[in-house]
Amino acid sequence: MNFRTDLALESTEPAKQVRTEQDGCVLTRIDEDGGTYVTMEVQAISDHIDSNDSLLKLVASELEALLPKEGMILAAGLGNRSVTPDALGPLVAEEVLATRYIKGELARVTGLEGLRPVAVISPGVLGCTGMEAFEVLRAVVGEIKPAAVVAVDALAARSPSRLGCTVQLSSAGISPGSGVGNSRPRIDRKTLGVPVVSMGIPTVVDAATLAADLLGREGPQDKIAPRGASMMVTPREVDLIIKRGARLIAMGINRAVNPSLSVEEFEELT
Amino acid sequence: MNFRTDLALESTEPAKQVRTEQDGCVLTRIDEDGGTYVTMEVQAISDHIDSNDSLLKLVASELEALLPKEGMILAAGLGNRSVTPDALGPLVAEEVLATRYIKGELARVTGLEGLRPVAVISPGVLGCTGMEAFEVLRAVVGEIKPAAVVAVDALAARSPSRLGCTVQLSSAGISPGSGVGNSRPRIDRKTLGVPVVSMGIPTVVDAATLAADLLGREGPQDKIAPRGASMMVTPREVDLIIKRGARLIAMGINRAVNPSLSVEEFEELT
Amino acid sequence: MNFRTDLALESTEPAKQVRTEQDGCVLTRIDEDGGTYVTMEVQAISDHIDSNDSLLKLVASELEALLPKEGMILAAGLGNRSVTPDALGPLVAEEVLATRYIKGELARVTGLEGLRPVAVISPGVLGCTGMEAFEVLRAVVGEIKPAAVVAVDALAARSPSRLGCTVQLSSAGISPGSGVGNSRPRIDRKTLGVPVVSMGIPTVVDAATLAADLLGREGPQDKIAPRGASMMVTPREVDLIIKRGARLIAMGINRAVNPSLSVEEFEELT
Amino acid sequence: MNFRTDLALESTEPAKQVRTEQDGCVLTRIDEDGGTYVTMEVQAISDHIDSNDSLLKLVASELEALLPKEGMILAAGLGNRSVTPDALGPLVAEEVLATRYIKGELARVTGLEGLRPVAVISPGVLGCTGMEAFEVLRAVVGEIKPAAVVAVDALAARSPSRLGCTVQLSSAGISPGSGVGNSRPRIDRKTLGVPVVSMGIPTVVDAATLAADLLGREGPQDKIAPRGASMMVTPREVDLIIKRGARLIAMGINRAVNPSLSVEEFEELT
Repeated sequence: MNFRTDLALESTEPAKQVRTEQDGCVLTRIDEDGGTYVTMEVQAISDHIDSNDSLLKLVASELEALLPKEGMILAAGLGNRSVTPDALGPLVAEEVLATRYIKGELARVTGLEGLRPVAVISPGVLGCTGMEAFEVLRAVVGEIKPAAVVAVDALAARSPSRLGCTVQLSSAGISPGSGVGNSRPRIDRKTLGVPVVSMGIPTVVDAATLAADLLGREGPQDKIAPRGASMMVTPREVDLIIKRGARLIAMGINRAVNPSLSVEEFEELT
Repeated sequence: MNFRTDLALESTEPAKQVRTEQDGCVLTRIDEDGGTYVTMEVQAISDHIDSNDSLLKLVASELEALLPKEGMILAAGLGNRSVTPDALGPLVAEEVLATRYIKGELARVTGLEGLRPVAVISPGVLGCTGMEAFEVLRAVVGEIKPAAVVAVDALAARSPSRLGCTVQLSSAGISPGSGVGNSRPRIDRKTLGVPVVSMGIPTVVDAATLAADLLGREGPQDKIAPRGASMMVTPREVDLIIKRGARLIAMGINRAVNPSLSVEEFEELT
Repeated sequence: MNFRTDLALESTEPAKQVRTEQDGCVLTRIDEDGGTYVTMEVQAISDHIDSNDSLLKLVASELEALLPKEGMILAAGLGNRSVTPDALGPLVAEEVLATRYIKGELARVTGLEGLRPVAVISPGVLGCTGMEAFEVLRAVVGEIKPAAVVAVDALAARSPSRLGCTVQLSSAGISPGSGVGNSRPRIDRKTLGVPVVSMGIPTVVDAATLAADLLGREGPQDKIAPRGASMMVTPREVDLIIKRGARLIAMGINRAVNPSLSVEEFEELT
Repeated sequence: MNFRTDLALESTEPAKQVRTEQDGCVLTRIDEDGGTYVTMEVQAISDHIDSNDSLLKLVASELEALLPKEGMILAAGLGNRSVTPDALGPLVAEEVLATRYIKGELARVTGLEGLRPVAVISPGVLGCTGMEAFEVLRAVVGEIKPAAVVAVDALAARSPSRLGCTVQLSSAGISPGSGVGNSRPRIDRKTLGVPVVSMGIPTVVDAATLAADLLGREGPQDKIAPRGASMMVTPREVDLIIKRGARLIAMGINRAVNPSLSVEEFEELT
C-alpha cells in the first residue's frame, strides 16, 4: 500500500527518530540516506510572531545549523501561487528580505551595512512556466553563485492531525510535488552543485492516502479520484494555515541569515 | 449515520427524481416539501462562456422559471471570501451586474434603458461581521423591497465526483453552511417575506462524510477531525473550479434577469 | 477655483485650528459646523504596530473620546475593494474584530467574556451593488440598532505630502467619495439616527486639484481629465500605504472599543 | 526639461513617424537607432476579446513580424506584481500559455501536438528578489536557449490621454523602469544574446512630468515629490486598465506564436 507523505516523521521507522521536547514543541531528528531531517510539531502556528517567539527561535536556529556560515543564500519559494494549498513557497518568497543588492552607498544610507546577502526567487511550476523549478534554479544558481539554497515547499502528510502545525527542515533537498503524486526533478546538492536545505509545512493529505489509512487497503477510485481528478483533504481554514506558516518560515529564514535585524525590522523592510 | 450534503440529488430517494438529458447535461427535477430542486450535472464547467453556451442557457432558463416575471432582484453572494472553497457566493456577487441605479439620464446616456433592476450584496459571515447573513439580508430586503432574492452559496456534496460540475437551483431557500455542519438561520420566503431562489455548486465533501462512505460507519475522530478541526475533501484545482462556477452562475443570473444584454456586454459592464 | 479635499486641515482657515505635538505626531483639532475634526500627521505609518505604538494609542484614544461609552459599535468599511486607492475601508473591515456574536457559552469557552459588541460591514459602492452605502447602512442600523457607527473611507487630499501619513477622525459624519468628485448621500447622525464617527487616510490627490495648485488656475481638461477620465495623483507605493493605514485604523477601532485585548490578540482573532 | 516617457511616439520627432489608421486604431511606425517601434492607439481596450477582435489581430500580427519564424519563445513579465500600476508584466505572464513541456505523450493525449514551444517567467524586481530582472533572464536564456524573448512591462507616458489605450511593440529591447525614473540594466539583443521584442502599455504619468507639462518648467519638489516620494498620475480605474491590457497582450503573444489555437482555447488552457 502506498501512503504518500513528504514527512520523514511518517515514513521512517520510529527507532531512527530522536525526539525531544522544548517550549511546547516536539522536536524530532532523523538521519537517513546521508541527510538530516528535523521536524518541529506544535499545537498551532501563531498569527503574531516577534523576535522572542520560541518556535521562531527554534526554526531559525535549526536552519542556521544546516546552512554554511558565510556566503549568499538563495531562498526559493516552490509551488503554485494560484493553488491555495500549494502557495506556501511563493508566499514565503514575498516575506524573505532580499539583501543582495543592499550594499555600498545604499547600505550606508539605510544603515543596513554588513548584512549577509540574500536573493529570492519563485521559480513557478511546470504547467505555468513551461520550465521545471529545477531548471530555473539551476540557471539562477549558475548566474549568482550562492553559497546555499533554501527551498520552501508545501508538503503532503499522511495524518490530517499534522496539517498546519508541523515544520520540517532537511539537508537532503526536495522533490517538489512528491507528496502529492506529481513528482518533479530533485532539487538537492547533487543537482544544483551547492548545499540545499528544504523547509516545508504539510498543508494537505492525499485523499487516496486517507482512504487507505481508514480502510487498511486501497480505496475505490471513483470515490477518491473521480475521473482522475486528484482529491485532497485539507482543513477548512487552509488559507489561514498557509498565511501563518509562510510568515513563520520567512521570518525563520530572515533571522537565521541576518540575526542582527528583528522581526519588526524585517516587516518594515519587506 | 449522518451524511452531510446540500444536494437534494443526494438526499432524496431516486423515485422522487425526474431525470432528463440535453446537450450533454443531466437535468434532475425534485419536488419536495413544497420546494423545487433542479440539478444540472456536466462533465466540467468551461472557463469560456458566451451567450450561446448550452449550460449557461439552461441555468438562465431554469432560474428565470423560478423567479417572478417582474420587479427588482436582490442577488446575495453568501459565504466567506477569504476561505477558498467558501468564496463562490462573494465571487458571483462581483460579476452580477447591478442595474438598480441605472435609470433616467444615466440609462439614456449609456443606452441601458429598460433594464430590470438588480441589486447585489455580499452579506459576509457571522465570524467576520458579527451578523448572520440572514440579518443583513432581512435588513436590506426591508430597505429596498426586491421582488425576489437569489441567494448563491458554495455547497457540500456527499460524493467527490460531483464537486465543481453540478449546479443546483431551488425555490426552497437555503440554510447557509448546512452542508458543512455549521448551519445558520434559514434564508427563505418565510423568513425574508419575498421569494428566495438558491443557487450553488458543491465545492467540498466533508471528510467525515467521505470516511463514513468508505467505511460504512462513522470514521475515527482523530483522523477526520483532529483536535476538532473540520477537514474537507476538495479537488486540488478548487480555486479554478470556483472561478469557473462563479462566472457561470453570475452570467446565469445576469441573463435570466436581463436577457437583452449578451455575456460580452455583461463582461464590459461589471 | 475648486480644490477638492476631504481634510478639514486643508479646507478650514488656520485660525480655527489648534495644533499640538506629541511623540513625533502633529495633532490638529478643528471645531466647525457643530462637528469636531481631529487630524494626526506623522512621518509615515509603520508596518508593524503593537499595543504600545504611540500613534495607535493616539488614534484609539481620540476615537474613544468621540464614541459613546457603552453599547454596540457598527464599523463600516466604505469604498471599493477592487479600486486600489479606494480599498482602505474594505481592508479595515477585514481587520476589525466582530464581537457581537461572542456571548454566552462561546464567550465562556474562548475566555472572551465581557467584550463590547462590535458588528462589521463593507456596504460596497453604488456601481457594484446598485445601492448607496447609505441605504445599506440605514438598513443594517435599523436591524441591529448599534449605539454608534464608525465609518472608514479613503480620503482625497489637496497636498501630495499628506498622502498616507495623515489620519483624520470626525464626529461630523462623511459624504463618501466627496473628495474625489463623486459625492454620495451623507452618512451622519442626522441620516442614520445614531452618532457617526468617520475615520480616514488620504490616498489620492485629484489631478485637477494638483494642476490648479501648480498653475494658480484651472488646468487644461485634455491633460488632467482626457475623455472625461478622472486622473488621480498617488504615491507609487499606494498599495503599501493602504495596507499599513488599514491596519492602523482597524487596530485603532479594536483598541478603542475593547481595550482589554492587545494588538496580538486581535491579530490572532481576526 | 526632462519629460519621462517610455513611448517612442512621445520622444521622437513627428517627421520620423509614419501613421496609418485601420479599424478605429491609429498605428504609428518609427525606426530609430536600429530598432522598430510600433504603437497602436485605440479609444479603450475591451474587456472581452475573442479571436476576431481587430486590435488583438493587429497586436498579434505586428508581434509575429518582429519575432523569428521558428524556435522557442521566452515570455517575460517584468515589474512588481504587488504595485498596482507595475503589475502588467506579471499579470501577462499568468495568461500566456506555456507550451514548452507539452510534447510527446502529453501532446498526443491532449491533442496539442505541433505547438511552438513557449516558456514563461516573471523575474520580479530588484527590491524583492535581490536580482536584476536582467540577471534572471540572462540565466534562464542560457539554460533553455530560446529563439527570442518577449519582454512585457508597464510603461510611463508623458500624456495622461494615452494611459491604458496605447500598446507599444519594439525590437529595440527595454530598460525596465526607465519611464518611471528607476532605470535598470537594459534587456535587449546585445545583453541577452537573442532577439528581444518588448511590449507594453502606459499605466502612469510621472507627476514631475505632468507638472512640467502644465507649467512649462520644473515643478516645485515639495508638491510633486514630497520627502522624495515619487508621485504618479494614473486613472482612477487603473486596476481595470491593467487587467484588460494584460489580457490583450497575453492573447497577442499566444496568438502570434500559436495561431492554431483560439482565444477560447487559450483561456481554457491557462
